[in-house]
Amino acid sequence: MKENLELFLDLYELTMAEVYFRYKPDTLATFELFVRELPKSRNWLLVAGLSDILDFVMNLKFEDKAIDYLKERKIFSQDFLNYLKNFRFRGDIWALPEGEICFANEPILQVEANIIEAQILESFLLNTINLQTSIASKASRVVIVAKEKTLYDFSLRRTQGKDAGLKVSRCAYIAGFSGTSNVLAGLTYGIPIVGTMAHSFVMSFKTELESFFAYSSCFPYKTILLVDTYNTLNGIQNAIKVAKELKRKGFNLVGIRLDSGDIVYWAKRARFMLDKAGLNFVKILASGNLDEYKIADILKEDPPIDSFGVGTHMGTSSDSPYLDVIYKLTQVGYDKKRLLPTMKLSEGKLTYPGRKQIFRVVDKSGFYVKDILALEKERLKGRPLLIKVVDKGRLLYNSPSLEKIKEYAKENLSYLPSIYKDIHSKVEYPLIISKALGDLTKKISKRLTKESQR
Amino acid sequence: MKENLELFLDLYELTMAEVYFRYKPDTLATFELFVRELPKSRNWLLVAGLSDILDFVMNLKFEDKAIDYLKERKIFSQDFLNYLKNFRFRGDIWALPEGEICFANEPILQVEANIIEAQILESFLLNTINLQTSIASKASRVVIVAKEKTLYDFSLRRTQGKDAGLKVSRCAYIAGFSGTSNVLAGLTYGIPIVGTMAHSFVMSFKTELESFFAYSSCFPYKTILLVDTYNTLNGIQNAIKVAKELKRKGFNLVGIRLDSGDIVYWAKRARFMLDKAGLNFVKILASGNLDEYKIADILKEDPPIDSFGVGTHMGTSSDSPYLDVIYKLTQVGYDKKRLLPTMKLSEGKLTYPGRKQIFRVVDKSGFYVKDILALEKERLKGRPLLIKVVDKGRLLYNSPSLEKIKEYAKENLSYLPSIYKDIHSKVEYPLIISKALGDLTKKISKRLTKESQR
Repeated sequence: MKENLELFLDLYELTMAEVYFRYKPDTLATFELFVRELPKSRNWLLVAGLSDILDFVMNLKFEDKAIDYLKERKIFSQDFLNYLKNFRFRGDIWALPEGEICFANEPILQVEANIIEAQILESFLLNTINLQTSIASKASRVVIVAKEKTLYDFSLRRTQGKDAGLKVSRCAYIAGFSGTSNVLAGLTYGIPIVGTMAHSFVMSFKTELESFFAYSSCFPYKTILLVDTYNTLNGIQNAIKVAKELKRKGFNLVGIRLDSGDIVYWAKRARFMLDKAGLNFVKILASGNLDEYKIADILKEDPPIDSFGVGTHMGTSSDSPYLDVIYKLTQVGYDKKRLLPTMKLSEGKLTYPGRKQIFRVVDKSGFYVKDILALEKERLKGRPLLIKVVDKGRLLYNSPSLEKIKEYAKENLSYLPSIYKDIHSKVEYPLIISKALGDLTKKISKRLTKESQR
Repeated sequence: MKENLELFLDLYELTMAEVYFRYKPDTLATFELFVRELPKSRNWLLVAGLSDILDFVMNLKFEDKAIDYLKERKIFSQDFLNYLKNFRFRGDIWALPEGEICFANEPILQVEANIIEAQILESFLLNTINLQTSIASKASRVVIVAKEKTLYDFSLRRTQGKDAGLKVSRCAYIAGFSGTSNVLAGLTYGIPIVGTMAHSFVMSFKTELESFFAYSSCFPYKTILLVDTYNTLNGIQNAIKVAKELKRKGFNLVGIRLDSGDIVYWAKRARFMLDKAGLNFVKILASGNLDEYKIADILKEDPPIDSFGVGTHMGTSSDSPYLDVIYKLTQVGYDKKRLLPTMKLSEGKLTYPGRKQIFRVVDKSGFYVKDILALEKERLKGRPLLIKVVDKGRLLYNSPSLEKIKEYAKENLSYLPSIYKDIHSKVEYPLIISKALGDLTKKISKRLTKESQR
């Protein structure tokens, strides 16, 4: 484990583990990770995070540094610390693949293992699904709205930290973005990297024109000129001068960037001026505090914008910077045969018991009609969504390439009926509870209400 | 550099750097990092992030893996890649220390260096100040509201990624939290770690009482019992049984935790029941979707709650998950003597030119009255806030211990007049622009408007 990530957990996971270790070390349990309620402005979730989770789970070990730290806390028994030294995950995991679409109350992950092993994963699993699914879902809204326009992730400077910076680039790419400004994401994931120039660059030269010529002479194939540092009209005129000069030398200016003011007005005006100058190949990139709402507004007027650079709002999922992800016990027992369904009864926090499957029912054209949440052993119509990815600690599933995940997300989004894709409306997708699951829920609820009060 | 963080930057930083390298390699520049506008629900910022920034800047090197990746992109000249191989930061940095309080338009960092060196730091500096100052500021609101109640960070499961998980614990601690559930933050920063138990733990035993006895027998000095898994009244009664049993053995139950339902009602009822049973030492911890607003509401009724576990809302600064942080060129030139003030003129995005100092004016009791934003060379009344932390690439400043930073934040918060501390009102703290800075701004604006259009 790099970075001592084995301690990326809440203390209670270890203290509960010590109790399990002493009192019932052979207890099996099933935990389910899901989102209790979708945020107000989300009609679907685009699932991401499984690749990092499998990497974590398959490599989870407690190194000496971590054990020493725990020992110094004087909380744990030496026997339990020895157990941790030999820890590895030996259980089963079912998951939704990355790029799947899901809804509230649908399991994204199910972990069935010795209760200690299942418990110790909790914080990492929640944190990973929370961040990556939040961002992929937000980014997919931008993709839906932007239609055929090209999208770039420009969020690095304001993501919540370094890890988020990387994961946002990856999740935006899965959702349908075409590239990122984040060079480390390029190195790490092979995502295409893109860039323009900063206002400070233009300001550091005596004149805007001088800055444009300097940049374009270094990158004659790759120049996008930022035209709004001083006066946008002037900026466009200067960009035209540079484009003509490049053209004479056999190069095409890639584009201009608009980052402030009335984007629609300036895009139209710039397109007109560029075309008139015989520069119809020069593209127009818009940026500046964009999100799906602003892009939708901009596109209402059908401006000649080719691409958008989208930053902070996508990169923090700013209107909903977290999901109501939870990790709940759904079965518990002492051996495989006696694994008993259970559920949470706390006020307003009821959960469904048992190990489950989601069946997605589609119409003749493949469009999603409804999902059925059922017990795993049920055989219902519809495509089962959860797949087994780890069996007795052995990896069954190799994460597809990023390109494959991106394609899968695109395909899934294409089958989500358009009624759910209106970013301004809250429309709930139908999730049906199977009769068997419904009956079990009633039965367990009754039993627990009685038993728990002993 | 671990993790190839030298590539934690936007591509344009490197392409602009190549242009500078070829056209004006000896250009000096001053950049200023500040927040343009405070979020709606913030009247102050509690500064955090400097320690990580200094660590990054002092160790920034381009390793072979990064250089190889850049070379494969076929964007950069070999000369520039060679320059990067030998890169190190040789400039100056002024900064607000961690735990300082600041407001919109006040420089949090100023970097004066060769323009390439100053430019290459941009994304890391913005990202770091953005996350850490967002979280410290949000956490400080919770601290203000909670007054003498103890606060714990329970946010790990829903922070935006691994880096944020760690930094949130640190920033909450700086702001006045007493501990964290995040074990890795304990190891990394020496922050006290705390924990209780999960609902799943209670559910994994046949009865609640059995789960309570099992836990308390493992941790007789450190048990906090979660009482709302099934029926809160019953849970409190079970906790009392365990507390009495512990007491007979010479131990004190630390506390009970309420995580759902009417927290105020249950806190009062639990306190009454505990006291009646002679257990006045048992503390009451409340948790569950808390933020400064909910805590303020809860405390209106003066319930006997001793501490709060605060998670998601603090850990993502959910009502404002980013700051409007920017990194702007304020001076540029070819050598020290000719470093000329500059500024940004774009529509609605004007900035102030020149290298600056903030002077904080206080009243006789030390309470903040106003700040003056001035040119650095001015000598005004008030405490100068920005300190030089790096000189010609040499570290001048050792980050204080976390405890010292925490104390400094507490002291600073104590001198912020209470009018700003009402979490429900937006009150703007007075920032005065010095006459010299105002005059310079007018002069430069006029000059640039003229010159830039050449």
